[in-house]
Amino acid sequence: MSAIRVIGREDIQKVFTVTAALRAVESAYAGKSAGTGRVWPMVFHEFDPGHADLDIKSGDLESAGVYGLKVVSWYDSNAEKALPALFGTSLLFDLVTGEPKALLNAGPITALRTGAAAAVGAKYLARKDAKTLTIVGCGELCPYLAAAALATIPSLNTVYLTNPHRPEKAAERLAAVTAATDALLKACGHARTAAINAAADAASAVGESDIVFTATCAKAPVVKSAWVKPGTHVSCIGADLPGKQEVESAVLARAAVYGDDTAQCFAVGECELPHKEGVLPALAGELGEVILGEKAGRTSDAEITVFDSTGIALQDIASAAVILNACEKQGLGTVCEI
Amino acid sequence: MSAIRVIGREDIQKVFTVTAALRAVESAYAGKSAGTGRVWPMVFHEFDPGHADLDIKSGDLESAGVYGLKVVSWYDSNAEKALPALFGTSLLFDLVTGEPKALLNAGPITALRTGAAAAVGAKYLARKDAKTLTIVGCGELCPYLAAAALATIPSLNTVYLTNPHRPEKAAERLAAVTAATDALLKACGHARTAAINAAADAASAVGESDIVFTATCAKAPVVKSAWVKPGTHVSCIGADLPGKQEVESAVLARAAVYGDDTAQCFAVGECELPHKEGVLPALAGELGEVILGEKAGRTSDAEITVFDSTGIALQDIASAAVILNACEKQGLGTVCEI
Repeated sequence: MSAIRVIGREDIQKVFTVTAALRAVESAYAGKSAGTGRVWPMVFHEFDPGHADLDIKSGDLESAGVYGLKVVSWYDSNAEKALPALFGTSLLFDLVTGEPKALLNAGPITALRTGAAAAVGAKYLARKDAKTLTIVGCGELCPYLAAAALATIPSLNTVYLTNPHRPEKAAERLAAVTAATDALLKACGHARTAAINAAADAASAVGESDIVFTATCAKAPVVKSAWVKPGTHVSCIGADLPGKQEVESAVLARAAVYGDDTAQCFAVGECELPHKEGVLPALAGELGEVILGEKAGRTSDAEITVFDSTGIALQDIASAAVILNACEKQGLGTVCEI
Repeated sequence: MSAIRVIGREDIQKVFTVTAALRAVESAYAGKSAGTGRVWPMVFHEFDPGHADLDIKSGDLESAGVYGLKVVSWYDSNAEKALPALFGTSLLFDLVTGEPKALLNAGPITALRTGAAAAVGAKYLARKDAKTLTIVGCGELCPYLAAAALATIPSLNTVYLTNPHRPEKAAERLAAVTAATDALLKACGHARTAAINAAADAASAVGESDIVFTATCAKAPVVKSAWVKPGTHVSCIGADLPGKQEVESAVLARAAVYGDDTAQCFAVGECELPHKEGVLPALAGELGEVILGEKAGRTSDAEITVFDSTGIALQDIASAAVILNACEKQGLGTVCEI
């Protein structure tokens, strides 16, 4: 007889903060590059191509003492049934015995770990005196990106929100994004000092920025190479399917480009098209190698750096392990005999 | 907010009977052959080759309205910790919306669905007047094999237990296997009429039998071709890893051989070595095709038939769906908000 802890959305939101996500994501990248975390082959199935699909991502992470998997399904017809299009469910197991440990709603984990990914990229690859961040894309992820960056990079004093396709949307979303960012920061004991502003002109916001995060649904590049000044760091979050690209290939051709998983970056990430076009024959390395000190990362103040975050199972597994530990300590979740 | 039903060993044992397993397994095979059930690529990882590994088997089954997965880990060092070597956990999702539905302990499902597999093979491929069954191998699975056969094939009047390597073991195990078989039959409303006997001589028991089930840990063949009379049906359960073989290749060379999944039978099943040796170039078909009436199955009373059961994800998924339905109706399991 084993016991498994079932951890729902509300309990996850109580214990999983921006700073917890930053630590989890950093440990995931480090584990992958140290060879103490492994990503196993992904299972992908299309129930109805373009309308419903599913993936199962799995792996193990020695530093967290667990292995696990995340199942994510997407059904576009769920909206008609007043159901979310996406369902995410994670299972976590003891790496020493194989015993099941926890079942978690992966939904509230994903936004925090994705925001943290962009920020960890900036922490290791941006200039140390970075003052200005532009977030390209004003969607649901925006506060998670802003809060993770502000919690990680204390030198930031300005955040611009911008939306290249619908410039007016940045101003519309400003109040909501600011409030959500402040709530996320407050939950981990931070108070925001940087200003958050809407920028109608994406070109000038990017041009002013030391750090750029891209998190759009764009299929064609929205960030032009001419906008990006020397010394900028760009963390790319949005490209997660073949053919998607948010940043002109010329930016990556000018940059030292790091990824979370080289094969996945070339298959489905921001690097896919520049690689196929021949302007990005290889990555400078994986971010985990920079975290471990095995790769230099940024080598000059004038260098442009890029982090291509495609999302790896270890981010979810490390995050789930942090949540499980916190829920065990606080007696949260429902423990069920199985 | 979704709700997931967590179903543990005790509740599974209340609702999952031999007859429920037989129906589930038959629907799984039929669904696979009809193309309304799909098996997705297996994830396999060795933590410590020969000492600890894991697999994730997944797929969908339209007739049950679900998709799902089963994670099975094996750690041989668990015995030192007074823990089971194997842990099995299943997750079930709604095929129409993707919503998570149930988490189940897969352990108590596996024995029933494996016993049912052998019996469904015999139901479709043995002679209709089969009187005698020999079970080769006296392990944990033995009562599940006996009960499933007796529940499916009412003409049986004799069951022999036999153990080629340690002939005395059959007599040692007889009382326990008989009691367990009767309990399994009683749970689904059957009363046993057939005799269950221990057979010290495997050769003569197999030679007398119309149906043979093999469920041993043997790596080299224990059932000789010379023992097997014309008209016999053999369901092979034990071979589940490359290099394992329970029945001499010459038996399969003489037989109409069906499998649960052709590719898996040739990769890891009883068919692997005969296929590699060239004596079994192709299967007669998959059992699902016989169930659907697309393949003839047995074509004469003198024909030897073989069913190679390697175990497919759909057996577990169909079984889990049957269990979930029963638990929903009876209010069993723990419903957790996630």
